[in-house]
Amino acid sequence: MKIDLNADLGEGCGNDALLMPLISSANIACGFHAGDPTIMRRVCAEAVRRGVVIGAQVGYRDLVGFGRRRIDADPVELANDVIYQIGALDGFARVAGDRVRYVKPHGALYNTAADDPEPAAAVASAVAAYDRGLPLLGLPGSALADAAQEAGVAFVPEAFADRAYRADGRLVPRGEPGAVIEDPYEVVARAAAFAVQHRVGALDGSTVAVEARSLCVHGDTAGAVYLAREIRRTLEDAGVTLAPFTAGS
Amino acid sequence: MKIDLNADLGEGCGNDALLMPLISSANIACGFHAGDPTIMRRVCAEAVRRGVVIGAQVGYRDLVGFGRRRIDADPVELANDVIYQIGALDGFARVAGDRVRYVKPHGALYNTAADDPEPAAAVASAVAAYDRGLPLLGLPGSALADAAQEAGVAFVPEAFADRAYRADGRLVPRGEPGAVIEDPYEVVARAAAFAVQHRVGALDGSTVAVEARSLCVHGDTAGAVYLAREIRRTLEDAGVTLAPFTAGS
Amino acid sequence: MKIDLNADLGEGCGNDALLMPLISSANIACGFHAGDPTIMRRVCAEAVRRGVVIGAQVGYRDLVGFGRRRIDADPVELANDVIYQIGALDGFARVAGDRVRYVKPHGALYNTAADDPEPAAAVASAVAAYDRGLPLLGLPGSALADAAQEAGVAFVPEAFADRAYRADGRLVPRGEPGAVIEDPYEVVARAAAFAVQHRVGALDGSTVAVEARSLCVHGDTAGAVYLAREIRRTLEDAGVTLAPFTAGS
Amino acid sequence: MKIDLNADLGEGCGNDALLMPLISSANIACGFHAGDPTIMRRVCAEAVRRGVVIGAQVGYRDLVGFGRRRIDADPVELANDVIYQIGALDGFARVAGDRVRYVKPHGALYNTAADDPEPAAAVASAVAAYDRGLPLLGLPGSALADAAQEAGVAFVPEAFADRAYRADGRLVPRGEPGAVIEDPYEVVARAAAFAVQHRVGALDGSTVAVEARSLCVHGDTAGAVYLAREIRRTLEDAGVTLAPFTAGS
Repeated sequence: MKIDLNADLGEGCGNDALLMPLISSANIACGFHAGDPTIMRRVCAEAVRRGVVIGAQVGYRDLVGFGRRRIDADPVELANDVIYQIGALDGFARVAGDRVRYVKPHGALYNTAADDPEPAAAVASAVAAYDRGLPLLGLPGSALADAAQEAGVAFVPEAFADRAYRADGRLVPRGEPGAVIEDPYEVVARAAAFAVQHRVGALDGSTVAVEARSLCVHGDTAGAVYLAREIRRTLEDAGVTLAPFTAGS
Repeated sequence: MKIDLNADLGEGCGNDALLMPLISSANIACGFHAGDPTIMRRVCAEAVRRGVVIGAQVGYRDLVGFGRRRIDADPVELANDVIYQIGALDGFARVAGDRVRYVKPHGALYNTAADDPEPAAAVASAVAAYDRGLPLLGLPGSALADAAQEAGVAFVPEAFADRAYRADGRLVPRGEPGAVIEDPYEVVARAAAFAVQHRVGALDGSTVAVEARSLCVHGDTAGAVYLAREIRRTLEDAGVTLAPFTAGS
Repeated sequence: MKIDLNADLGEGCGNDALLMPLISSANIACGFHAGDPTIMRRVCAEAVRRGVVIGAQVGYRDLVGFGRRRIDADPVELANDVIYQIGALDGFARVAGDRVRYVKPHGALYNTAADDPEPAAAVASAVAAYDRGLPLLGLPGSALADAAQEAGVAFVPEAFADRAYRADGRLVPRGEPGAVIEDPYEVVARAAAFAVQHRVGALDGSTVAVEARSLCVHGDTAGAVYLAREIRRTLEDAGVTLAPFTAGS
Repeated sequence: MKIDLNADLGEGCGNDALLMPLISSANIACGFHAGDPTIMRRVCAEAVRRGVVIGAQVGYRDLVGFGRRRIDADPVELANDVIYQIGALDGFARVAGDRVRYVKPHGALYNTAADDPEPAAAVASAVAAYDRGLPLLGLPGSALADAAQEAGVAFVPEAFADRAYRADGRLVPRGEPGAVIEDPYEVVARAAAFAVQHRVGALDGSTVAVEARSLCVHGDTAGAVYLAREIRRTLEDAGVTLAPFTAGS
């Protein structure tokens, strides 16, 4: 049994140093929605030092909105924005002695690339143009998963231990009742369920299979560090090996 | 006899398509002082199609001021800004089937890195960290030339056919009388003097040796395209081979 | 008979000096989608010198995309962006001896505020908060017209001489066949029809009433200056007084 | 005895709500070095609610560098950047029912306008153009004080309780030994010395007269809130009235 833990880093929040030892893959912001060159360099160096895999967390060009606002970008422009961000981060990964090993969209781009085939194709085509060997990390069953396959790019499905699932395996949208799981014990238990049983309880009481090779750990609150530590400990106690998904099976 | 012709491209002006066939090295803006991802991708693709070598034209983060205003950046931040820009452009060079093959500072950064050891060292250390094999293109005898040597990075000196030189081989500063040579015939003649005789008439009437492996062609006016064409034709008529400096001797 | 001619100025294109003498109201970009403080100051000074009324052309914060990309901004943030832009331009209007006298959304914000009640309400509420006496200039029958009324702000309808209308008075969407009228003679004739007869031929051959107190003149091509001059001349020949809509009736 | 307490607010740090009740004048960031429209609106509303005077804290356009890096801006551009920022904040002050009542440069602009007559003149001329009645708040004896007088703008001198002074009344430059006073008791005592005796102990042991109508309270650390509270309490205990300098004497 093996799973990856991924978290967003380099966004200028204070938890980077605490989260880094707990995860196996770092989604590092590339300066469009958060981060700047100096943060990128420092986080890449720290990731390499810790043996954490570097991923490009690509977003809309919107520092003011933290990448949380959809921008109705032309697909060609969007693809080029993604290439720019991967290239920029790859420079710092190279300086740190490694390279970008996967790509994950952030915020509004995560959502539009999950729901809408056009931005999904833009993101996947950008990755394919940059390096067909880079996998995309995202939501199983999403438009991005389809676009990755179409573009000849590997797709790695992730799961969210703090989000409720519907019986069909989709996330309950934020804003709907019960969408976010607040109880830390339940979050930890669900993380173990994903990793060990590859399934989780759905909101309607049924059990749903979720094939995830990575768990996304949210890191923007102090409690999130505690939660990440508990998830890590619980998974290790359950005999799950925590390792980057890029390490192969 | 052999020389390189370099020009600034990808800055959003209209002469890119006319200048590209005339030059051997393109200094491509990386989005900090000018350019954007879509322009960068298009110009890289066109450079590869034309056999023009791709260089990263790195500048201060100042779109409003077109990189012409000195920013008193911390050397560490400045170095990281340079790495970011090289990496971003390298992504588009890679997509176009090539890579960034040299680095040249733009505008205010060109001047501060020529005059001041601290930003010069920041730029040179950034290039060394990214890829010690990338040469820096700049002003002979400048602080950047020294910093490149210190950092173990090759330095390629360039000359300006439209600028007056002092007897000691330095440029007459803009703003001083006679600093810019307006007469196109004289500019063309001086380009030939650099390439064939490796020297040029100084403002005081003496003759000064200038070792340049590249001529910088300014491209931001319509007249500049005409001038570049005349320089190219005159050099070819004089038996000078126009070839990228990266091609070796 | 009286009508206003409005055009977008201060966007960094070269036609400002040629258009200014031809129009009565200038929609001046406020630095979010185009323009910068120095352009804003110069254009305000020139408008005051020419007796042209200053309007704040407010847009999404997107210099790279020229405000042509919808940003899914929170309505509160959007309203605050609009207030910021009006205030900034009002400073330069004040320095020039006048003030901002109306507000017109630009590009993607023009379209979203025309179609969608939520951004329309954000724009109208921003204007009402800043100065309830400022009218909004926009598309008759739009969501913005409704939102202005709701917010207690005057709404001034404009017409487009180079756009086809449907029988119900709405514009034929760009991209549909016949949406843009290319023939300059027809454009000029339609301008006169709006001003004199308050109606125009629709795409289906019927005639449609369009109550417009201003005609929008597009200014981003050289031909547009010629067109604006012809429209002005033709309207004056037809006995139409060209005057700012803010001048009252 | 009467003095003003001013602090930087609206910079996106977390102490705004704690500092606001302690000060009499708020230097509110205008979106160039920090802040954004939504923060500006909220802080202006809160200032009005608390009876705190609104000042425009104008800076270089450098969000990444937090306005702490000198930008070698053309004086005309710099003046226009200042007008833009004052106007933008004045919009939110207006929405909140008040207006901008003074201007204070931030960070690198504070320093360059204190030391260098050219940017000082640019800032003072911008304020004079916008509204000659707005005072400038800054360092006594600075280039900005001279420029304000030249431009016909009132200048209000401020003092720093946590900075050492030389015998000639200038600040000991940061970086020199003893430049920053770390001991909170001493900081509080010096605040009282400025307010009550109009003089303070210099680094060389002498006593120096400092005419300050405002004390600058630094607010970017948690300890700073405590310090501001102690300063306020101590001044009140000493019979000093804390009131905005704009309130007249």
